[in-house]
Amino acid sequence: MKGNALIGQSGGPTAVINASLAGLIEGARRSDRIGKILGMNFGIEGFLEERIYDLSSQSGEILDKLRMTPGSALGSCRYKVGDEDLPRILELFRKYDIRYFFLIGGNDTMDTIHRVEAYCREKNWDLWGIGIPKTVDNDLYGTDHTPGFPSAGRFNALCVKEAGWLARDMRRVDQFVVYQTIGRDAGWLAAATALAKDGEGDAPHLIYMPERPFDRERFIADARGCVERYGWVSIVVSEGLRYGDGTPVSAARDRDNFGNVELGAMGGASAGLSVHRILSEATGWRGEFQITESLPMSGADRVSPLDREEAYQCGLRGVEAALVGETGVMISLVREEGSPYRVSYATVPLKDTAVRAKAMPDHYINEAGNGVTPACLDYLRPLVGELPDFVCLEPIFIKEE
Amino acid sequence: MKGNALIGQSGGPTAVINASLAGLIEGARRSDRIGKILGMNFGIEGFLEERIYDLSSQSGEILDKLRMTPGSALGSCRYKVGDEDLPRILELFRKYDIRYFFLIGGNDTMDTIHRVEAYCREKNWDLWGIGIPKTVDNDLYGTDHTPGFPSAGRFNALCVKEAGWLARDMRRVDQFVVYQTIGRDAGWLAAATALAKDGEGDAPHLIYMPERPFDRERFIADARGCVERYGWVSIVVSEGLRYGDGTPVSAARDRDNFGNVELGAMGGASAGLSVHRILSEATGWRGEFQITESLPMSGADRVSPLDREEAYQCGLRGVEAALVGETGVMISLVREEGSPYRVSYATVPLKDTAVRAKAMPDHYINEAGNGVTPACLDYLRPLVGELPDFVCLEPIFIKEE
Repeated sequence: MKGNALIGQSGGPTAVINASLAGLIEGARRSDRIGKILGMNFGIEGFLEERIYDLSSQSGEILDKLRMTPGSALGSCRYKVGDEDLPRILELFRKYDIRYFFLIGGNDTMDTIHRVEAYCREKNWDLWGIGIPKTVDNDLYGTDHTPGFPSAGRFNALCVKEAGWLARDMRRVDQFVVYQTIGRDAGWLAAATALAKDGEGDAPHLIYMPERPFDRERFIADARGCVERYGWVSIVVSEGLRYGDGTPVSAARDRDNFGNVELGAMGGASAGLSVHRILSEATGWRGEFQITESLPMSGADRVSPLDREEAYQCGLRGVEAALVGETGVMISLVREEGSPYRVSYATVPLKDTAVRAKAMPDHYINEAGNGVTPACLDYLRPLVGELPDFVCLEPIFIKEE
Repeated sequence: MKGNALIGQSGGPTAVINASLAGLIEGARRSDRIGKILGMNFGIEGFLEERIYDLSSQSGEILDKLRMTPGSALGSCRYKVGDEDLPRILELFRKYDIRYFFLIGGNDTMDTIHRVEAYCREKNWDLWGIGIPKTVDNDLYGTDHTPGFPSAGRFNALCVKEAGWLARDMRRVDQFVVYQTIGRDAGWLAAATALAKDGEGDAPHLIYMPERPFDRERFIADARGCVERYGWVSIVVSEGLRYGDGTPVSAARDRDNFGNVELGAMGGASAGLSVHRILSEATGWRGEFQITESLPMSGADRVSPLDREEAYQCGLRGVEAALVGETGVMISLVREEGSPYRVSYATVPLKDTAVRAKAMPDHYINEAGNGVTPACLDYLRPLVGELPDFVCLEPIFIKEE
């Protein structure tokens, strides 16, 4: 069926979400069944206000550079579509003759497409609705991994590796470094930093993921053990870390040396900061905390090249899927077992991917709950790609007489 | 005079301090007057314990990769040399026949070389002592800029640019982003982020440097003005920011909504966190804070290529200077006025560089104290180098009927 295409970006950006947008535009341009290519400015929220880009008229130069540009070029939102919005959406679909509908997003976005697509079908408006996966959290069901995650994981691994090289050489001054990463419910982005480690003494030494309860005393003991062995310790924490009773680690329960501290969201709560304070208070050690927040979601100069290409392909394949009549599905990355890395593209029903978040598999986390397993490294390595190869001086010392 | 060379690294690393080390080793290898090349493991502190690398025996491959490796490969320290250490240092210089003495460091390091060199001269031990500049803070006198600063500035500019691209697209969700950078007394590293801005609405909008007192109310008004104009605001703060009465901004004086918060050093004090809280409390806006700490000092994959080359050259030139009989000097970068960028190498007396920190010139900071001037941008641009060229979609919208 002939008609126009509508594309939107939703939720937090990734460093490669615009590559998916470029893939969708490119795919749509190739088809003579798709007329105009429209873009939602600020997602569904902006669409409801009829803020609509004409993407057919964007120059080739803009589209080329889009693949390398961070952010969500269309503008994003975190709007929860209510049932009351559905008639208005359909009205606008009719008005703009939207037959092909693509949203790039995470769990909630897949749910939105699912509901819009089902509503249109019920109202006899033929629509091909396709989800393009993206989220740095890597917590979408139905796909081996999610575009955006490999690049964010790479950013984290670079930070932890490079800061580790520095921290080791400064261990006579500072004893620890804490890196906080995104990850409310899933530890994937913390786990990715494990790739920074080449030799046994390299950073990171301890990785705490939200899949396991955080235990203050065990943490202090873990850190002491590392400092005894290596003279310093590199610690990675997911922002969503919780104690056994469910209290977020970021909502520090401790008093510091200076007064009563009770950090809340508005006070700049942070698991990294809490862990930093716990350790410096327990040991008297000096250390730093690094909180990069959205930097791994936007680090366009540090993307995993594989990730950028896959994100672009997901866009292209999304259009292809719609044109062969698929609807109510998400593009999915299917990975062959073993090495070398090989991936193919498929589709999965949106209802199987939406809303629920995929945690890390149990066998990817070590028994002590402070690191990852070799199986996890095998999964991560091809995604994140090779990291720079640094050296230490050979330990050739002048003998004392 | 024939003799051995001794090299040390001191203070905090930069992403290119090992390039200076490689330059020194390379320079020393070329000379037949220099016998063994020795390295202080953990600076003067380790040297006093006779922890001494034999750098003559390092492989070519190690030395090649050293130029690309972050950290201070020799190990660093923050040891303050006391007068009582000087006889022991001289004793070790005699024992190991040290005639050429090179330290790579900042203000304190230059002071150390100055005192060691003067002491040896007084005791009739011929010594050629040369300082190789390094510090991300760019606050050394006697040189146009300091190796390490351009790369750290580049790291900061990349972060602020990329996070700005993201934040603009997310402005319907979050209204502000705060980036905290290193810089206790000098605002250079905050200023470097100004290069992230291409168009008027781009990040960063507000840059607060320690050279100007921070005013809470003026800051809130500045931020409100930006959000009115652009819908969001990108804020950069130096860690060393202070109020007019000298109180560090990091030592928050405010109470938050949840209790009595008084952050101190052990509690994870941070100007970025304070500024984040001030703004979210005053406005109710959502935003994030990014604290990268040592990441710009170790971001080997993001160095300014000019910086790496200059750092290497400073090492080479340091050896050359010693071999033509200079002593008690620091290698200095002399920049020609105007464009294109041209630099030559010279030496300056250590006594003119040591201890005092160079603040930013007054005319590099704008009148409002929340940004930099065009003259500052001209100074910074060639050092930091070109940043990635990102695009926005052309604002071509579907007209509503």
